[in-house]
Amino acid sequence: MIDVALFGAGRIGTIHAGNLARDAGARLKYVVDPNAKAAQALAERHGAQVATVAQVFADRAVGVVLICSSTDTHADLIKAAAEAGKQIFCEKPVDLDLARARACAETVKKAGVTCLIGFQRRYDPTFSALKARIQKGEIGTPEMLVVTSRDPGAPPIPYIRSSGGIFKDMLIHDFDIFRWILDDEAETVHANASCLVDPAIAETGDADCTAVTIRTKRGRLCQINTSRRAAYGYDQRFEVLGSEGMLQAGNHATEVVASTASAVSRDLPEHFFLERYRAAYANEMAHFFAVLAGREKLRTTIDDGVAALALADAATTSWKEGRIVRLG
Amino acid sequence: MIDVALFGAGRIGTIHAGNLARDAGARLKYVVDPNAKAAQALAERHGAQVATVAQVFADRAVGVVLICSSTDTHADLIKAAAEAGKQIFCEKPVDLDLARARACAETVKKAGVTCLIGFQRRYDPTFSALKARIQKGEIGTPEMLVVTSRDPGAPPIPYIRSSGGIFKDMLIHDFDIFRWILDDEAETVHANASCLVDPAIAETGDADCTAVTIRTKRGRLCQINTSRRAAYGYDQRFEVLGSEGMLQAGNHATEVVASTASAVSRDLPEHFFLERYRAAYANEMAHFFAVLAGREKLRTTIDDGVAALALADAATTSWKEGRIVRLG
Amino acid sequence: MIDVALFGAGRIGTIHAGNLARDAGARLKYVVDPNAKAAQALAERHGAQVATVAQVFADRAVGVVLICSSTDTHADLIKAAAEAGKQIFCEKPVDLDLARARACAETVKKAGVTCLIGFQRRYDPTFSALKARIQKGEIGTPEMLVVTSRDPGAPPIPYIRSSGGIFKDMLIHDFDIFRWILDDEAETVHANASCLVDPAIAETGDADCTAVTIRTKRGRLCQINTSRRAAYGYDQRFEVLGSEGMLQAGNHATEVVASTASAVSRDLPEHFFLERYRAAYANEMAHFFAVLAGREKLRTTIDDGVAALALADAATTSWKEGRIVRLG
Amino acid sequence: MIDVALFGAGRIGTIHAGNLARDAGARLKYVVDPNAKAAQALAERHGAQVATVAQVFADRAVGVVLICSSTDTHADLIKAAAEAGKQIFCEKPVDLDLARARACAETVKKAGVTCLIGFQRRYDPTFSALKARIQKGEIGTPEMLVVTSRDPGAPPIPYIRSSGGIFKDMLIHDFDIFRWILDDEAETVHANASCLVDPAIAETGDADCTAVTIRTKRGRLCQINTSRRAAYGYDQRFEVLGSEGMLQAGNHATEVVASTASAVSRDLPEHFFLERYRAAYANEMAHFFAVLAGREKLRTTIDDGVAALALADAATTSWKEGRIVRLG
Repeated sequence: MIDVALFGAGRIGTIHAGNLARDAGARLKYVVDPNAKAAQALAERHGAQVATVAQVFADRAVGVVLICSSTDTHADLIKAAAEAGKQIFCEKPVDLDLARARACAETVKKAGVTCLIGFQRRYDPTFSALKARIQKGEIGTPEMLVVTSRDPGAPPIPYIRSSGGIFKDMLIHDFDIFRWILDDEAETVHANASCLVDPAIAETGDADCTAVTIRTKRGRLCQINTSRRAAYGYDQRFEVLGSEGMLQAGNHATEVVASTASAVSRDLPEHFFLERYRAAYANEMAHFFAVLAGREKLRTTIDDGVAALALADAATTSWKEGRIVRLG
Repeated sequence: MIDVALFGAGRIGTIHAGNLARDAGARLKYVVDPNAKAAQALAERHGAQVATVAQVFADRAVGVVLICSSTDTHADLIKAAAEAGKQIFCEKPVDLDLARARACAETVKKAGVTCLIGFQRRYDPTFSALKARIQKGEIGTPEMLVVTSRDPGAPPIPYIRSSGGIFKDMLIHDFDIFRWILDDEAETVHANASCLVDPAIAETGDADCTAVTIRTKRGRLCQINTSRRAAYGYDQRFEVLGSEGMLQAGNHATEVVASTASAVSRDLPEHFFLERYRAAYANEMAHFFAVLAGREKLRTTIDDGVAALALADAATTSWKEGRIVRLG
Repeated sequence: MIDVALFGAGRIGTIHAGNLARDAGARLKYVVDPNAKAAQALAERHGAQVATVAQVFADRAVGVVLICSSTDTHADLIKAAAEAGKQIFCEKPVDLDLARARACAETVKKAGVTCLIGFQRRYDPTFSALKARIQKGEIGTPEMLVVTSRDPGAPPIPYIRSSGGIFKDMLIHDFDIFRWILDDEAETVHANASCLVDPAIAETGDADCTAVTIRTKRGRLCQINTSRRAAYGYDQRFEVLGSEGMLQAGNHATEVVASTASAVSRDLPEHFFLERYRAAYANEMAHFFAVLAGREKLRTTIDDGVAALALADAATTSWKEGRIVRLG
Repeated sequence: MIDVALFGAGRIGTIHAGNLARDAGARLKYVVDPNAKAAQALAERHGAQVATVAQVFADRAVGVVLICSSTDTHADLIKAAAEAGKQIFCEKPVDLDLARARACAETVKKAGVTCLIGFQRRYDPTFSALKARIQKGEIGTPEMLVVTSRDPGAPPIPYIRSSGGIFKDMLIHDFDIFRWILDDEAETVHANASCLVDPAIAETGDADCTAVTIRTKRGRLCQINTSRRAAYGYDQRFEVLGSEGMLQAGNHATEVVASTASAVSRDLPEHFFLERYRAAYANEMAHFFAVLAGREKLRTTIDDGVAALALADAATTSWKEGRIVRLG
């Protein structure tokens, strides 16, 4: 029975703790959170105890840490955990600073621990089925990718201010989808962006709608369109054109179709990421423990985290400087 | 912490035991099954012990029994459990014999225990969303119902022989859907049936395709079409026409769409009921414990089990005697 | 250049006249209608002249007649046309009386003229594509057919009174679909019907919702559900289950999908038959002239008209007498 | 009765001649084509006569010319026709050279004649329904547009060589869609392109896959992705995200759904533009004559032709020079 410590008792930490509970081989021992009340509530629910960061790292019985705390704590916790020889499950991003993220990746590699970065979309049943079908050759060679990624609404302005900007905060997932689906690396990035949803976002120096084009080293093309506002809910789709066909991944909903005097309609997509990726989060946690048990190969590494961040940096530069950015 | 005993360590018992494990307020204490190996394996997985029927009923600490054993044991176990004051979760059908089923229902009522009959379809997310929308009046007054219910393949002949016939074995679920969706009772039943899949089924006196028409006491019409063979998988759909529109419930699959030189295609529906109703089984178990906790009102009672059986009997008579059967 | 006479300048006659105009090898010479104004308007539009029945039959140059007048005139006009050696395009039904319809068929055969009965659904692009795919064996042997056929609203009561009843007026098309798609004949018919839309229809002795089950001579099963009211428009779908799969034919609309805060929606199906079968009517007329030119084999004969009527009669009897009717 | 002369008896000329035939108020008088056989065949089919360019312009009775000849003849024919006071229907593009196209537009305006440029997509039933719904405000303010435009296969290399490049030959339609749907003008254009389908295309200096981003003067974003190869047929879709929702326009096909052991599938989209835009071409011609009759306002003007060409020029420059191009 592996003992697990959880950093962060917020929404995403709560989800991961719940998924952990279904895994026979692990036990939530500690919950750490500056919000004592949230930590206490979550700990009680799972028969765990509230602890400090120091207590966690002092306990040799803790084999695994789940880092679900705020972004600015990720790098330090990863380093501390790696140096303590603990296995790491860390929410994205590794860090908002590319150099720090790279340093983290170094530490992890030196320590030889497992470090899963939580790009949960790769574990979504629809997306992973699509990926498997590309790998089986169903559409020949993938050539073009179109990613649509839209939030139901913009986050509060203070969140925006500390988010690192839309490319690091929101598109980092899309950059990971790009690398995963095309199995290729970016050669150039062009990003345009606009503020159409809320002028207060522009005032922070950020944008709320983006249009990104990536050309890969093998000459493939990828377009990403994002918006902070989709009136109809969380919109997460992508399509891959290959030499022999196309695969499209759509949103989830019930299979109810209503025909009334006004229209033939289906349900809206799930409201936001916690609902949309419910199954993905469960699969991700199961995968993490399967990796620790030696049954599966780690699917989203800290290198993936670094690569997505590098793309976010390049896109930000492209937009701010109005030019095409070439990646190393 | 309620102690639970499970009768039946087969496929469906295994599913219910798994769903039970996620429920904080209950603990699987006993597993009972003539197949000692299966009982042992399942018990071990959940930290339970193998027991006999007698041991279960002798243990006053057992507050709940899950009856997932073979159909011919249901009635006796329900009676014994009811008389022992235990709460009951029983797979459909109550019994193949209508009189026995009615006697069971009597015993349950006298004992005053909860007895959920496992019509799991009512707990399917798509189906229950549809039902809720009817209740909100989205399509006005429901007037016609068309139910499509097809298995991916016929069961083995020995199973068919002891199944009570296609109307009791397969359509009993559809009869329950009919009662639930139209919220009405049958006045007349007409059933036709044919053997188109496998002549060996005809030799047992059974059919493998059916076409049933029910007219309700309020003059509404329902048609059910079923087959033991759908080459494309388990097909479970229905549509309700109301005075102001129509609601249709479809099959589940991923949201991948493939466009190749031959077609634009989606995934097949789930293979069979264990896959199709995975979420429904989980919801059903959660509902059962919510009922025991007094938070919800029992949604599928033993009376529902009796009523569906009465329809199956009437349909069998209609088909065998080539006439329209009037219900009491 | 074949000279054509048209009986009936109503909605359907107007459509056929328009489709005729695009056919290079024919010329509308006469329009006959008791409504002089309608006849005049349509004649002018196509450079034709208004005439009487007698004038049409007296003109030897007229090679083709299109019978689009009221149902009660069909039989007499068919007979007169056949005896005059003219080629016949006649709207369904041949007649409301089965004996008269059979006599008509006799006359047509004796005369050796072509007589197309306007079951236009067989010429619908979606329906005929489906039929062609059955014939290519895409779903193996067809075994079950489910037909959904719903009007947007009930016709006026006077129309209902002279319509011959819902089975002859509305389901006659569905009976033809049944024969065409399953390529089989009925052995027994069971029909139930109800009056749920408008009680005034019940007062005429008719119903507005029906549920029909047909068993074919080869043991196949067909279910037809119809209603005089679909709030969402004209609903014309059917599905065929075969030994190796299923084919479904749906309604037509634009390919616009709207996602708003309330739903993901598509357009309603076409409003009614004139819109829904626009392409079918054009294809039907083109087919008729292709038959006359010897390029195609007649697809909907007067025998098809008689057979559908016989089914409508049997269904009416089944409903009125509450019994299963066996066909000869 | 207006007399019409047609330049070009190829595929598209043949379609326009056919649509013209259904229009009561016009008569095809002349067909002009260097290919005498093609001209003769088409003329015969419509009771017209073969003529030379000079003969057409010498005949004052000719009120309308349809220019469906090769691209390099468009500008001269437009000028000649405008100066002769004839109404003009001209296939896109006006010319491959922007300066010449602008000069043409000048001449047309001076002459005061009608000049419809054949951006037929605006007349597609699905696309025009979508546009009408934007105008009604169904999705609030349009903010982002994603256009997918893929051909079933690349044209022959000689065609590519004289096509003006993929941006002028293929994307010119997409640029028109962009202007029409967003009702806005480009501020900057970024285009990337790649040669993934056929290396012989790269040898001509052209590409076969493109990814374009346009930012409008009002800060809206548009992405266009195109390919010369879609294994599944001609793929013509676009989607508009607005402040209150999204509208998507899809491909056309029959409404047959097939469920077999391998998949649930729909028909492929129409093969190519002649099939896909059959209805659009008919609507376009009807619109042209409605404009001439004063009943409608011209929907695709020579200025639209010039503007799309300017975008194609900018995109070509962006791609060739690897930079973002600002429009005047």
